Amino acid sequence: MTATKIALVGIGKIARDQHIPALAASDAFDLAATVSRSGGVEGIENYETVEALLEARPDIPAISYCTPPQVRYAGARAALVAGRHVMLEKPPGASLSEVHALQSLAAEKGLSLFATWHSRHAASVPAAKAWLADKVIRSVKIDWKEDVRVWHPGQQWIWEAGGLGIFDPTINAFSILTEILPVEVHVTGAELRFPTNCETPIAGEIRMDGPDGPLVTADVDFLYEGDPFWRQIIETDAGTLTLNQGGAIMEIDGGAQQGEGWEEPGIHGEYDGLYARFADLLATTSSEVDLRPMVLVADAFTLGKRLDAPEFIDPTLEES
Amino acid sequence: MTATKIALVGIGKIARDQHIPALAASDAFDLAATVSRSGGVEGIENYETVEALLEARPDIPAISYCTPPQVRYAGARAALVAGRHVMLEKPPGASLSEVHALQSLAAEKGLSLFATWHSRHAASVPAAKAWLADKVIRSVKIDWKEDVRVWHPGQQWIWEAGGLGIFDPTINAFSILTEILPVEVHVTGAELRFPTNCETPIAGEIRMDGPDGPLVTADVDFLYEGDPFWRQIIETDAGTLTLNQGGAIMEIDGGAQQGEGWEEPGIHGEYDGLYARFADLLATTSSEVDLRPMVLVADAFTLGKRLDAPEFIDPTLEES
Repeated sequence: MTATKIALVGIGKIARDQHIPALAASDAFDLAATVSRSGGVEGIENYETVEALLEARPDIPAISYCTPPQVRYAGARAALVAGRHVMLEKPPGASLSEVHALQSLAAEKGLSLFATWHSRHAASVPAAKAWLADKVIRSVKIDWKEDVRVWHPGQQWIWEAGGLGIFDPTINAFSILTEILPVEVHVTGAELRFPTNCETPIAGEIRMDGPDGPLVTADVDFLYEGDPFWRQIIETDAGTLTLNQGGAIMEIDGGAQQGEGWEEPGIHGEYDGLYARFADLLATTSSEVDLRPMVLVADAFTLGKRLDAPEFIDPTLEES
Repeated sequence: MTATKIALVGIGKIARDQHIPALAASDAFDLAATVSRSGGVEGIENYETVEALLEARPDIPAISYCTPPQVRYAGARAALVAGRHVMLEKPPGASLSEVHALQSLAAEKGLSLFATWHSRHAASVPAAKAWLADKVIRSVKIDWKEDVRVWHPGQQWIWEAGGLGIFDPTINAFSILTEILPVEVHVTGAELRFPTNCETPIAGEIRMDGPDGPLVTADVDFLYEGDPFWRQIIETDAGTLTLNQGGAIMEIDGGAQQGEGWEEPGIHGEYDGLYARFADLLATTSSEVDLRPMVLVADAFTLGKRLDAPEFIDPTLEES
């Protein structure tokens, strides 16, 4: 197999932590260029803008974006107009309507568009989905609590409109939820706490119904100190399934599961899975854009009551 | 043609003003029953609940809902589970996710689901769409300003989460916009004014981009006294098209258009069009669920900055 040349746009924390190692380990892709205003990667050609890349490198057919969601649309549209396939970090954009516009453009141009959800490639997600498939779901409790100062130092875009605030991590929980549950869920209410100096929420509670009534409660908190919670507890007619560490670890009735679902925690493998899936999509020029996690977030914003929270100042920004 | 028996659920202002006259004028439908807790319609059998209707009248294959959006899902789901076709007043629900769930259920059961947008059936909408089809769109200015105390007396559900506030009328503008524009638009920002005692906005500004940058500005106001504005001004490379009175009247460069686009204002014909379309869908057991207007609203809630507005007390509630 000849590796497909790919360019990576937005060389920030997620690119260095995940995308670059996953591409280095991939037989399917060859990282041929980067786009970054603040410097690229040692040994890889870097361009200042997407436009410069598209102009200079017609030989690169695929482009992967890990820029903040607020600037995703313009870059992705330029790539599609120039005939390149596109892969998008989560969330795929700042609005649902802009992703729909990209979908239409990709379909019109006969190109692949892949809106990724890395948490769906966590080690235990397939096993959890398989186990839940024939169960009656009684309730789901999501706890998604982490310290933004530890996990997103200096990422000011999170607090600007379109950056989603606490929903930037919580959309990972929703991407797992919509993948593994055998029933559909819909948002019925939420309380969201907005720091007085931010455009996005820092904590909250979101409630969802299933087909027969109340089913899901999500407690989310971006100022949670100590070990983070990335956990879903799913009570069924045949026992309780717990997904921990963002989908890496699965337990049933408190016992760790062996086999398919059991691996050391860590999200490295998630991005290996994403690029393997993108290679599959390119092989058949197909697209995969499942917006259900983002619809749940938009519904929470639409239905949510807004409560004030204290001003939030990122201490890692004050240091610089 | 034999008329299809239909039941109407939710006998409030919009049912009496629009649905019942449209059904009375329709050859395709026969209003066979109503569901209302506060009394139905003279001469038509009324039930207290949807469940009682479904139990008592298996002979009624189609049900039309004009209940407030917050209670739409449960009733519509019960009807689909019982094997009935469903038509929904706008907006089709309180959340996008619940409408997606209804879509899946209708598809699974082989039933018709029709999410209606009455403003798309306004007299001049087809002519506006046809005229714009080959034009370059330079800008769109939407003014949607009316007095909620005149047009929605006592409709407290508008101010509760899921009731949409000023977006209850503004979604009509968005339903026309997405129908007539030859390009896709996406929300980029908004400022929304929330009365301190309400969960939904009373006024605001919403901005959208087209493929090549800023395109649409919407000024919306639910406390506008005097003659309402339901107007879209669309500047193109070949002149300016103005839709007035919610799509009833079309002008080009200030001159009223004759022919297809010119009729006396009034929205009666809109509901005739909706029921004619529902009859078409039933004839082929097809569904029509275009959620683009609702996606634009959800995006505005997601991206919008919230500003405080003075407390709003509906004077028509104080009188009762």
